[in-house]
Amino acid sequence: MYTTQMDAARKGIVTEEMKVVANQEGVSEEYLLEKIAKGEVVIPANKKHLSLKPRGIGSGLSTKINVNLGISQDVNDITLELNKAKLAIDWDVDAIMDLSNYGQTEKFRKKLIQISPLMIGTVPIYDAISLLNKELIDLSAKDFLDVARKHAEDGVDFLTIHAGLTKEVADTFINNPRLTNIVSRGGSLLFAWMNIHQNENPFYEYFDELLEICQKYDVTLSLGDGMRPGSIYDSTDASQISELITLGNLTKRAWEKNVQVMIEGPGHIPLNEVEANIKLAKSLCHNAPFYVLGPIVTDIAPGYDHISGAIGGALASYYGADFLCYLTPAEHLRLPDLDDVKEGIIASKIAAHSGDIAKGSKGIEWDHKMSLARSNLDWKSMTNLALDSKNVKKYREGNQLQDQETCSMCGKMCAIRNVKKIINGEKVNIYK
Amino acid sequence: MYTTQMDAARKGIVTEEMKVVANQEGVSEEYLLEKIAKGEVVIPANKKHLSLKPRGIGSGLSTKINVNLGISQDVNDITLELNKAKLAIDWDVDAIMDLSNYGQTEKFRKKLIQISPLMIGTVPIYDAISLLNKELIDLSAKDFLDVARKHAEDGVDFLTIHAGLTKEVADTFINNPRLTNIVSRGGSLLFAWMNIHQNENPFYEYFDELLEICQKYDVTLSLGDGMRPGSIYDSTDASQISELITLGNLTKRAWEKNVQVMIEGPGHIPLNEVEANIKLAKSLCHNAPFYVLGPIVTDIAPGYDHISGAIGGALASYYGADFLCYLTPAEHLRLPDLDDVKEGIIASKIAAHSGDIAKGSKGIEWDHKMSLARSNLDWKSMTNLALDSKNVKKYREGNQLQDQETCSMCGKMCAIRNVKKIINGEKVNIYK
Repeated sequence: MYTTQMDAARKGIVTEEMKVVANQEGVSEEYLLEKIAKGEVVIPANKKHLSLKPRGIGSGLSTKINVNLGISQDVNDITLELNKAKLAIDWDVDAIMDLSNYGQTEKFRKKLIQISPLMIGTVPIYDAISLLNKELIDLSAKDFLDVARKHAEDGVDFLTIHAGLTKEVADTFINNPRLTNIVSRGGSLLFAWMNIHQNENPFYEYFDELLEICQKYDVTLSLGDGMRPGSIYDSTDASQISELITLGNLTKRAWEKNVQVMIEGPGHIPLNEVEANIKLAKSLCHNAPFYVLGPIVTDIAPGYDHISGAIGGALASYYGADFLCYLTPAEHLRLPDLDDVKEGIIASKIAAHSGDIAKGSKGIEWDHKMSLARSNLDWKSMTNLALDSKNVKKYREGNQLQDQETCSMCGKMCAIRNVKKIINGEKVNIYK
Repeated sequence: MYTTQMDAARKGIVTEEMKVVANQEGVSEEYLLEKIAKGEVVIPANKKHLSLKPRGIGSGLSTKINVNLGISQDVNDITLELNKAKLAIDWDVDAIMDLSNYGQTEKFRKKLIQISPLMIGTVPIYDAISLLNKELIDLSAKDFLDVARKHAEDGVDFLTIHAGLTKEVADTFINNPRLTNIVSRGGSLLFAWMNIHQNENPFYEYFDELLEICQKYDVTLSLGDGMRPGSIYDSTDASQISELITLGNLTKRAWEKNVQVMIEGPGHIPLNEVEANIKLAKSLCHNAPFYVLGPIVTDIAPGYDHISGAIGGALASYYGADFLCYLTPAEHLRLPDLDDVKEGIIASKIAAHSGDIAKGSKGIEWDHKMSLARSNLDWKSMTNLALDSKNVKKYREGNQLQDQETCSMCGKMCAIRNVKKIINGEKVNIYK
């Protein structure tokens, strides 16, 4: 009846996935049909991902967030990475990217897809060396496609493919020196491969074959930004933007085959360039959903990049980014542990929500309920409504308060307490 | 020869304080003279604060940050609060506000001023009840002025005075109901006092007397926003803006007496109203330096308000706010402990710096150095350059790396490592 969600939308068919998303987001099915048909909304939902609770990403929907995890040579611990996945599921984020690149990647991926109601994304090129047991130099263009096909068959909902880092873009990079060169892992592997083999980017060269794979399973393409800036200094440069133009062209080709597309974005961008970056991406890529990594707005705070990223992410969401990849405090330093993952999730949730309430009052009722609870000095409701209720309890515990209605910040000088008394015609005494 | 820095600037006198600030900020003395004369820059430097290392706040200077602390009925521990002050001094923030309101406030204040090279601010009304040993109801207008005078004599560099919460503004508040009423502690105390006594705001009524005190010691007035919104719902409402208009009028009166002025601002503001709030404040208050509390951009994340505040603070700084009051994770829940203070300082520093590099590339060399160190995989320099070097060391410790040049995030798939090899004509093998 239909191949992909986009194909269905173009045929006017409301899928089960669309019904779930329309309900979740409080938008009409007609709205979704129109936006998915145009490519402005995607529902990454691989037909083989049976445990998936589908979610929509794009124009007019709430900003989604993604958690990265996966096994690697330095931290080859399946249990730990699955625990991160469980944490992400418990916190009800929207997607998990499995960046596994060493060890039993297939076993891990299958297990993850089996347990996850969240969308699963992968970067096939990370897995190629491990899965095929070949060194980078020995991989063929066909090998890359085979890994993508394998991931699609396993039930991955979206694939990050750095198809825009063409020979031409690589030349632009060489001719426009950067402070931090290429910082995208996938982009750098492709750049290395292209250099060794003196060949075009295999995902670019065989893009039509890739689209066939995506069409078959309804895998959403997440067109990766191999040239994303790795420093404020490099942001919004010729390499980044020329790749983005290529991604725009590839987007149109994917849409011709009814393949859903997201565009990945930076990266490191100073605050004053965030708006322009979102507008450029939306314009050059025909309003495809935009998925940003951060962006972080300063380079100086490793150990706190969840904060630098929340600043950029909130602003990006406000200006129209649809999907935020989380950053943890461990970014630039090591793989995150479970605590880091939690901190990263919280910071991203704050960023996404702040953007959402600013761009369309989506979800602002939550803020209003919290403020009403504050106004009533209703600590139970404040605790329950908090993004992290457990943490609020921890903060409140052990407080030695003269007045249990207040907190130790102001004690009996609490403005809420005293103004309430005045409005109620009661006396206000502070210390007597 | 001159009374205040503003008086000096208007007479064309370059003070010692101006020389220090010009040197610190990399601006010319002429620039400072012009800006201080106009009121667009302040140097809060009480003549009696002998340990002060002066700093400038305002147009064209780097964004400054403030740490709140002080003894109170619930946490009446002078040692703990002095340790917070030492932490703030070690982290080289710009100002400390002593919000003490119970116990040996005078002793604490004098000790703090004695040890602090940072600017010290206070809110005299917090201290009135304790210092004069009178209940709120028993305080007279003269009492309020006496406390302000006492603080000025003790060497406080700037006084927060909620002189704009007039009877008229209070009426506006009553006629425009809010979700969270008044959340400013000082504002609420004045509102209560005005209500009990059926009198005008004493600081408004005796503003000229207050200016005399400020002039004598060169105390900078920080005109408080008693009507700052306590929730996203209340932001940018009639009460807030009518008070701001009053603060603009008071600013002009202060400038006539050569008294330096800052304007305090919100509070809780959604992202989409931050720019307008900064522009309104600057316009209505004749470009006096703007000192914001946060702003936090969502109400839902108590326990993480340093992050919500960093988002708003960064954006505020970018749009022209000059001074950020830190928020700690404990905001809305309790007084911060030492860890909270540190987290709050870091988040504010990230916000201030992100704003600075966005608004004028001030300090962006720091980001560039960090990125160069990253590009060189120079972990020693990355650690030394990091905002919090100790934390970076902690994150790097115990990493079991296959390649010491990299981190466990990407291991031997490190983009920087591999692109460097390609550019140098070396072979790239990942796992073999």
